[in-house]
Amino acid sequence: MDDRSFEVRTDLAVEAKDMYVEQETNTEQEPKGVHVRETSDGEVKVTYVEVDEVGAETIGKKPGTYINIESQGIRSHDSVLQHQMAKVLANEFQQLLEKHGIANDAKALIVGLGNGEVTPDSLGPRVVQKAIVTEHLFRLQPEHVSEGFRPVMALTPGVMGVTGIETSDIIFGVINKVQPDFVIAIDALASRSVERVNATIQIADTGIHPGSGIGNKRKELSKETLNIPVFSVGVPTVVDAVTITSDTIDYLFKHLGREIEEKDQPSKSLTPAGMNFGKKREFTEEDLPSEERRKSLFGLVGGLGEQEKKQLIKEVLSPLGHNLMVTPKEVDGFMKDIAHVVSSGLNAALHEAVDTNTNDSYTK
Amino acid sequence: MDDRSFEVRTDLAVEAKDMYVEQETNTEQEPKGVHVRETSDGEVKVTYVEVDEVGAETIGKKPGTYINIESQGIRSHDSVLQHQMAKVLANEFQQLLEKHGIANDAKALIVGLGNGEVTPDSLGPRVVQKAIVTEHLFRLQPEHVSEGFRPVMALTPGVMGVTGIETSDIIFGVINKVQPDFVIAIDALASRSVERVNATIQIADTGIHPGSGIGNKRKELSKETLNIPVFSVGVPTVVDAVTITSDTIDYLFKHLGREIEEKDQPSKSLTPAGMNFGKKREFTEEDLPSEERRKSLFGLVGGLGEQEKKQLIKEVLSPLGHNLMVTPKEVDGFMKDIAHVVSSGLNAALHEAVDTNTNDSYTK
Amino acid sequence: MDDRSFEVRTDLAVEAKDMYVEQETNTEQEPKGVHVRETSDGEVKVTYVEVDEVGAETIGKKPGTYINIESQGIRSHDSVLQHQMAKVLANEFQQLLEKHGIANDAKALIVGLGNGEVTPDSLGPRVVQKAIVTEHLFRLQPEHVSEGFRPVMALTPGVMGVTGIETSDIIFGVINKVQPDFVIAIDALASRSVERVNATIQIADTGIHPGSGIGNKRKELSKETLNIPVFSVGVPTVVDAVTITSDTIDYLFKHLGREIEEKDQPSKSLTPAGMNFGKKREFTEEDLPSEERRKSLFGLVGGLGEQEKKQLIKEVLSPLGHNLMVTPKEVDGFMKDIAHVVSSGLNAALHEAVDTNTNDSYTK
Amino acid sequence: MDDRSFEVRTDLAVEAKDMYVEQETNTEQEPKGVHVRETSDGEVKVTYVEVDEVGAETIGKKPGTYINIESQGIRSHDSVLQHQMAKVLANEFQQLLEKHGIANDAKALIVGLGNGEVTPDSLGPRVVQKAIVTEHLFRLQPEHVSEGFRPVMALTPGVMGVTGIETSDIIFGVINKVQPDFVIAIDALASRSVERVNATIQIADTGIHPGSGIGNKRKELSKETLNIPVFSVGVPTVVDAVTITSDTIDYLFKHLGREIEEKDQPSKSLTPAGMNFGKKREFTEEDLPSEERRKSLFGLVGGLGEQEKKQLIKEVLSPLGHNLMVTPKEVDGFMKDIAHVVSSGLNAALHEAVDTNTNDSYTK
Repeated sequence: MDDRSFEVRTDLAVEAKDMYVEQETNTEQEPKGVHVRETSDGEVKVTYVEVDEVGAETIGKKPGTYINIESQGIRSHDSVLQHQMAKVLANEFQQLLEKHGIANDAKALIVGLGNGEVTPDSLGPRVVQKAIVTEHLFRLQPEHVSEGFRPVMALTPGVMGVTGIETSDIIFGVINKVQPDFVIAIDALASRSVERVNATIQIADTGIHPGSGIGNKRKELSKETLNIPVFSVGVPTVVDAVTITSDTIDYLFKHLGREIEEKDQPSKSLTPAGMNFGKKREFTEEDLPSEERRKSLFGLVGGLGEQEKKQLIKEVLSPLGHNLMVTPKEVDGFMKDIAHVVSSGLNAALHEAVDTNTNDSYTK
Repeated sequence: MDDRSFEVRTDLAVEAKDMYVEQETNTEQEPKGVHVRETSDGEVKVTYVEVDEVGAETIGKKPGTYINIESQGIRSHDSVLQHQMAKVLANEFQQLLEKHGIANDAKALIVGLGNGEVTPDSLGPRVVQKAIVTEHLFRLQPEHVSEGFRPVMALTPGVMGVTGIETSDIIFGVINKVQPDFVIAIDALASRSVERVNATIQIADTGIHPGSGIGNKRKELSKETLNIPVFSVGVPTVVDAVTITSDTIDYLFKHLGREIEEKDQPSKSLTPAGMNFGKKREFTEEDLPSEERRKSLFGLVGGLGEQEKKQLIKEVLSPLGHNLMVTPKEVDGFMKDIAHVVSSGLNAALHEAVDTNTNDSYTK
Repeated sequence: MDDRSFEVRTDLAVEAKDMYVEQETNTEQEPKGVHVRETSDGEVKVTYVEVDEVGAETIGKKPGTYINIESQGIRSHDSVLQHQMAKVLANEFQQLLEKHGIANDAKALIVGLGNGEVTPDSLGPRVVQKAIVTEHLFRLQPEHVSEGFRPVMALTPGVMGVTGIETSDIIFGVINKVQPDFVIAIDALASRSVERVNATIQIADTGIHPGSGIGNKRKELSKETLNIPVFSVGVPTVVDAVTITSDTIDYLFKHLGREIEEKDQPSKSLTPAGMNFGKKREFTEEDLPSEERRKSLFGLVGGLGEQEKKQLIKEVLSPLGHNLMVTPKEVDGFMKDIAHVVSSGLNAALHEAVDTNTNDSYTK
Repeated sequence: MDDRSFEVRTDLAVEAKDMYVEQETNTEQEPKGVHVRETSDGEVKVTYVEVDEVGAETIGKKPGTYINIESQGIRSHDSVLQHQMAKVLANEFQQLLEKHGIANDAKALIVGLGNGEVTPDSLGPRVVQKAIVTEHLFRLQPEHVSEGFRPVMALTPGVMGVTGIETSDIIFGVINKVQPDFVIAIDALASRSVERVNATIQIADTGIHPGSGIGNKRKELSKETLNIPVFSVGVPTVVDAVTITSDTIDYLFKHLGREIEEKDQPSKSLTPAGMNFGKKREFTEEDLPSEERRKSLFGLVGGLGEQEKKQLIKEVLSPLGHNLMVTPKEVDGFMKDIAHVVSSGLNAALHEAVDTNTNDSYTK
């Protein structure tokens, strides 16, 4: 999980795309160079975001494929749905490997990013603990390795605050020594939407930027810098307080806006005793242009652009500590479940002999 | 930590008082029946809130003494300041015991409320682990108990979701059997202010209401029901998303309001490129009545009362899960520090032979 | 896990029986009043030990039924075999409930004994975390309880070193308040045999003696004292150093004895280079009476009785700390697995609607 | 902690020396090429073992300096004595650095060996968590680094069973990239003596052999292979069951031997009711040569050499699982304390501005 700068704020391509759409265009059209496709598998929704060079400029995400697997399985503690998420992850990741021509016996290095001692940041280290690693068996006891397994290694590089070392230096150093054929980085992400926290798995083939993000000192790990494919699997586990507030204000805008438009059928829920919305309605003129109406509803704040509004919120929150990242109170249980979903999906994708039903026989 | 109903929202008397003042009065005057006094000890601020029967009606908190110990020691990882907090806690708690005529050899029962497996809710169980318990030694090896210790017992009743039992039933049952002279309940609290999270210790002598808070089934533990004094020590560790949002909107109001009043010296920070605040100023007329001005700045939302606004926010957040309680990402480290501060303060208050410097020699 | 006195040393009835047989009789006959029956279910061995009043005197265990479920599933990290253990546990426990006339809707209280902060002693608290508790739902939301569940409560009383309270006082106090129809105590046990550590589940219907075992101050929880059936489920997770040593010396005796008898086919493994066992053989005379031979092989130590030998070992180990209880280095993984096996077996036995396959859908 | 072969069995030079003395010589003389010196600092005993090329051959440990810091501070939960241990460690380590000409601003890499998820093997990872790391501050915010700190980095490479990678490959790869001036490896050790478990800190300047120890595939990290000094700090936290047994049998020998020699003042403790030691005494003839007497006391077993005896014990224990490594039941508390002692001693040794009193202000 990066302490990314204010402008980025989301690790998810699908959100970056949505932000662009919200801020820069008035239509629901896709930005140039970004192609989005959605499918679903039962209650699990899958969104493919393909970004080309043009799109990369537009939405500020590297060109490549981003796959989003969404479900409420974690948040609702639904183990059946969690198993379904793992299956979809296994399937999608397998196809991504195939697309990049990764052979069944190509050597994988799983990199578990993040701080194992900070619960919402511990996804990477937890998945490493549950990964089926085999490279040492191939090397030392090849006669004991069954058919259907590939050589897999795993590394937990830690975070710079604990190691004092650029995380990318640790990874580069180890890759140099152990020569994997491809890399999979696992990381807890930050989302800009409360709704996506613990509800989305993002797979990508675009490499990673581990590290503190201070200045331009961090280094990218990608096909360009390593000459091998670098995949990533991430789950947003935190959201910043700025985002929560901003989202809620947006919801307020939309909600009140709709409310007012439906002036003859006031939603019951919005008019509890004591809330005299009748009075408000006199401001709502059908013919008022949209921006004008927003201003009359929300005054100056309603008239602010997206960036202005967030800048403002950030400023008023700063006495409380810059970068107040928050996580749901039930973080311990959520992290346990997410790590299980991601590791069983990943193990099944990497080893032909493993599927999400049999995974638990191989791991602890 | 209770899943208290929307209206309560704060476990802190000082906040309840502030809320009352904000919502119901236009002045900064204390509400009737509530007496507030502030002192400070170095960088630690202490606020005493005395609530009488009248005040209890007014602010919705039981009559009695509430002491708030505030410092940024936890949030800034400042171990010197944390030690200072523990000393102030020891001192204040000792005085509260004296005020209630608790003798030096009176038998204490510490009750560690909350769920030890949910990090932000684990304050109670953590403090029990670090409490200096002695009652068994008094009973079984009295010759080995040094001067300066009192008999202390400690209990971790768990939470109803794990036990299936009303927490108050467990506590009543045990108190009945072990007959303490007084009770101290430790609990993680919910705050309505992001600023107070992990920055305030509240001591009170007004008893507790453990349990799920569903309906009126929970039972109070207090002098009235048990015939022995019931003290509490709590630290807010979570805040709900509604609160964060509402606070931020309030800050926005105040900030923008002030901004606009200072029209000739626009704050630099509020006018980044692209934010044409000059335009705004034309709305600000000195003679506009306050409410009018708020409306022009924030439209309808600006015109809402406190309760209306929160109800609205709550409604728009509900798709994200009712009662989204959040905690800072660094929750693991914060909880460890808070438990140390509270337990060393408490141990020093309870045992004459212990002070916050020597506490670590007795505990692990 | 009790700090039982030297003489008891085992929490397992099957071991107490074996000890009696070894020490007091020369035959392999069952002691009077103790009836043993063995079956097996795949690789899981089940031993039933029925002890009557006479047998209780003989082997020092309370009269009743003791069922031992044995398998190497935990130690060999074999998840299929672990699942099988859970199924056998569910089945045996269900039959024991039926035998005692426990109705399907009788209210259970699970008591998780032991210290959750001491890994090898944490079985009870871990099982409580994974138990399907329902009593609060029956009470507060009866309309949401499906068919096939019984009311279940769970309690983690802690240990006297942390609470300062006799554990039995906590349990008595709570039982008094919540009035269960039967009690199930879960505890980590001490074994006298390294072989049984993490390899045996003991179920019994004879009540429990929680607490520190100092003097006679601890109190029994049983049908006699509570008027309701008290079952127990325990797994040996530690063994004392005295036991390991004593066992090994016994093995040595047996091994060398056999070795010497097979004088014409010396086992290769016992004669590594440098071990001139030829020399030994001159001491072995076929006609030497067994005791005589033992003496010649092992001198004075060989001539000691079981109790004498252990007393001696205990004495020489005492500089290292009395009661040095040890556990395998891999204790963390073992405890996780045991808690899963015990809790899923128990949940399936208690709730008709749950079996060991579906258990994981209900718990975390 | 290595799964070293049977012959090595101890990670402590002082034990290797003792073993050599016991097995190969009849005198208490030092082996050739091994120089031992003892001092003490209050209740903390310090033993210096200097091994030269000749001594290395003799006792099977690499040439260099080994310093043993011994105290019962951990085992007796004595925090004052633990603080004293940390001070001695700081002092000794500082002197060792000076001896090797390590400058105050030389760049250190701390390597925390072992598996953080296996409690008795988690010393390395725990110390890394508590190390004061500064290299990133020197690099990114040099203006914020106070006087009296040196650049320190820290790495937790994990274990091959989790990573699939030779641990030495990870360390070599990272060293290659980050170029430290010296390395300090922290590891949990195996002792051959129950008495030393959790009671001894060994410092050495002889490099390390991380990894699985299977065959000759592991690689040494030392001045020879890296061209920079490689120090180590280790604490024995486990002991194998073979060792416990063997030690106890040795104690038995010595104890009984002494007992018998003192035939006219039989120790009370050795003659409890039922132990007729009078009978034994007839075997004890003052003029019997020592070996003869051992045989008469202990028969064949008494006549076995050290290696023979251990081979025999190992064989009889093997049905219980080869390499049964055990740890005291209270392992969780012990590891917490050891990690605190080692990290505060190390931090004070590395940074001039830190001492063991102020260490806690810098770490969590």
